Amino acid sequence: MEGRESAKTAGKPIRCRAAVARKAGEPLVIEEVIVAPPEAHEVRIRVICTSLCHSDITFWKLKDPPGYFPRILGHEAIGVVESIGEDVDGVTEGDTVIPIFLPDCGECVDCKSTKSNLCSKLPFEVSPWTHRDKTSRFTDLKGETLYHFIYVSSFSEYTVVDIAHVVKIDPAIPPNKACLLSCGVSTGVGAAWRTANVEARSSVAIFGLGAIGLAVAEGARLCGASRIIGVDVNSDKFEIGKKFGVTDFVNPASCKDKSVSEVIMDITGGGADYCFECVGMASLVHEAFACCRKGWGKTIVVGVDKPGAQLNFSSFEVLHTGKTLTGSLFGGLKPKSDIPILIKRYMDKELQLDEFVTHEVSFEDINKAFDLLIEGKSLRCVIWMNR
Amino acid sequence: MEGRESAKTAGKPIRCRAAVARKAGEPLVIEEVIVAPPEAHEVRIRVICTSLCHSDITFWKLKDPPGYFPRILGHEAIGVVESIGEDVDGVTEGDTVIPIFLPDCGECVDCKSTKSNLCSKLPFEVSPWTHRDKTSRFTDLKGETLYHFIYVSSFSEYTVVDIAHVVKIDPAIPPNKACLLSCGVSTGVGAAWRTANVEARSSVAIFGLGAIGLAVAEGARLCGASRIIGVDVNSDKFEIGKKFGVTDFVNPASCKDKSVSEVIMDITGGGADYCFECVGMASLVHEAFACCRKGWGKTIVVGVDKPGAQLNFSSFEVLHTGKTLTGSLFGGLKPKSDIPILIKRYMDKELQLDEFVTHEVSFEDINKAFDLLIEGKSLRCVIWMNR
Repeated sequence: MEGRESAKTAGKPIRCRAAVARKAGEPLVIEEVIVAPPEAHEVRIRVICTSLCHSDITFWKLKDPPGYFPRILGHEAIGVVESIGEDVDGVTEGDTVIPIFLPDCGECVDCKSTKSNLCSKLPFEVSPWTHRDKTSRFTDLKGETLYHFIYVSSFSEYTVVDIAHVVKIDPAIPPNKACLLSCGVSTGVGAAWRTANVEARSSVAIFGLGAIGLAVAEGARLCGASRIIGVDVNSDKFEIGKKFGVTDFVNPASCKDKSVSEVIMDITGGGADYCFECVGMASLVHEAFACCRKGWGKTIVVGVDKPGAQLNFSSFEVLHTGKTLTGSLFGGLKPKSDIPILIKRYMDKELQLDEFVTHEVSFEDINKAFDLLIEGKSLRCVIWMNR
Repeated sequence: MEGRESAKTAGKPIRCRAAVARKAGEPLVIEEVIVAPPEAHEVRIRVICTSLCHSDITFWKLKDPPGYFPRILGHEAIGVVESIGEDVDGVTEGDTVIPIFLPDCGECVDCKSTKSNLCSKLPFEVSPWTHRDKTSRFTDLKGETLYHFIYVSSFSEYTVVDIAHVVKIDPAIPPNKACLLSCGVSTGVGAAWRTANVEARSSVAIFGLGAIGLAVAEGARLCGASRIIGVDVNSDKFEIGKKFGVTDFVNPASCKDKSVSEVIMDITGGGADYCFECVGMASLVHEAFACCRKGWGKTIVVGVDKPGAQLNFSSFEVLHTGKTLTGSLFGGLKPKSDIPILIKRYMDKELQLDEFVTHEVSFEDINKAFDLLIEGKSLRCVIWMNR
């Protein structure tokens, strides 16, 4: 069926609806756009549904570069391949795919290594273009170019994505769950699973229980951590956190005369084995480092702070504690090999995804999804393109 | 023989010679002191020889705490147990031992763990006392207390050391080689071997080719690293470095329009797998972090900077690079189990120690050892107590 559908459109521009960010911080405008056919190494995808991530909001607010307008935002999605360009291997028309902002060329030393998920051939950068030729596949009806967003731009019924950013998946998974694996949930689960490699029966502290922090909890739960401590200024997060394995909760506002790290040192009897900073606040990285266990504790930076934000440590506390600091981009996951594993674990009822979907709206109501996330009411709001 | 010797002195104070630091930065004074018998958990050691480490000089210069005077410095040594106090297991009179500043109680969760070398029961701190009862075993002939130095105080013919800081070794090893394993050389070799766990065929960059940095090279060589890049402002270090496996050399003064990290990125084609900061300069930690390989590079802080020195990183460079930062105290080695392994590797002609000993002096000339190290003329100067 998909094959037949594409036969009509392959090689031709497609006119479809997109939610265009025309100006920083102003509501997206649903309008008709033209999506060019895929060039070499590219696939054109019919988006089934997309979900909203904090990074979309961050870039939507940015007046100056790397904020660009007009732009098609969105980077958590699932879709079906409508057509492919030349030199596309491993994916064909009709395949169900997830676009991923992080490239996985499969050929470079990093992609071939088990130790890195940072492609050298097509390095990730915050670019407003498609990957290889740094042009756009989007124009509006007046002929004006619309910018891409981190190689995905899923707030459109169709989008064009480089094959290095496309993962073929089992179509049996419900699309409104699968799209979460395109960024946020994978980032959190991967940070615990791949970057930290959380050991069974270990203790974990998570700063910030938004979707990413909860996904870290879920990853730590799957790894068999016995103690998962959530830290959040909103005490309501403890209840939702429990669904993902959170066993203890610390509200910094209730710590009185102790620092958060002192409270966590008490709870764990000397420090958590793994600490994750998921808020994106440089000062919290230091707090996380302070409360991880001397001798072997790992602090993992997951949250994205403003450009230029500085992390400060005393030389002494690094040298004399044997602690480790590391960063985790996309949870250390290798998109093409690790996402199918997460899909399978969901299908096998091990990995929980359903609980992340707190809201679902139709494409026309995409600005509601923004409001819900900004107001802290949603974890993930799924936006259905045609429903 | 040792047994007979000790029978005369066990349980009694010993009057012997020590080199006392009476005032910050002033030459040590060889004088007679009284060394009390060991208390519970302690052994009294007849020092055979001791070598001089930069930390001795650092504390010798310090006018204010943690500088204390009068004090018996020295912490790299080898000796023979003269007598033991109560509750001392595993070591007896006549045993050849190495004192180590880092405790290894063998009982706490850290000492029992394979992941930590930071004893929880008797935590290392820069203390002027013996470990458990925070008193001194040294007095001068006027009855004034002399302070200890990091649990060793080897600039004395006899010293009293907590059993947690004593490692029994094979007496077949020449003492002027063995004493190096008491601190500096072990720290460097261990940083490569235990903390970084350097992989075969990997690349390593070492900032600072003093004894510690050269020992890192030696450790990396033993681990099979294929490229070992030394960085030092003194180009003469390349020749000595070659003996320990250094294959490439960068003098920051000769880098012209490039930074050291750019030069190392070029040499390695993208960054060194492991970078070690052995100078003790916080700004170099950042340079080391910059030139380690994205995706998997590890930066290991080995050098000790001034108290309060700050390490600064942008949140972005930690998050987006997948690099790891960690500290290494005593090279991540567990004294009681790892030092005997290093001794064996020396006896098996694998580990090189001889090349570190550039000078040897008699105890009377201990101040010459200070001059040689301060002037950068020696790597290690061995001080013989009775020769």
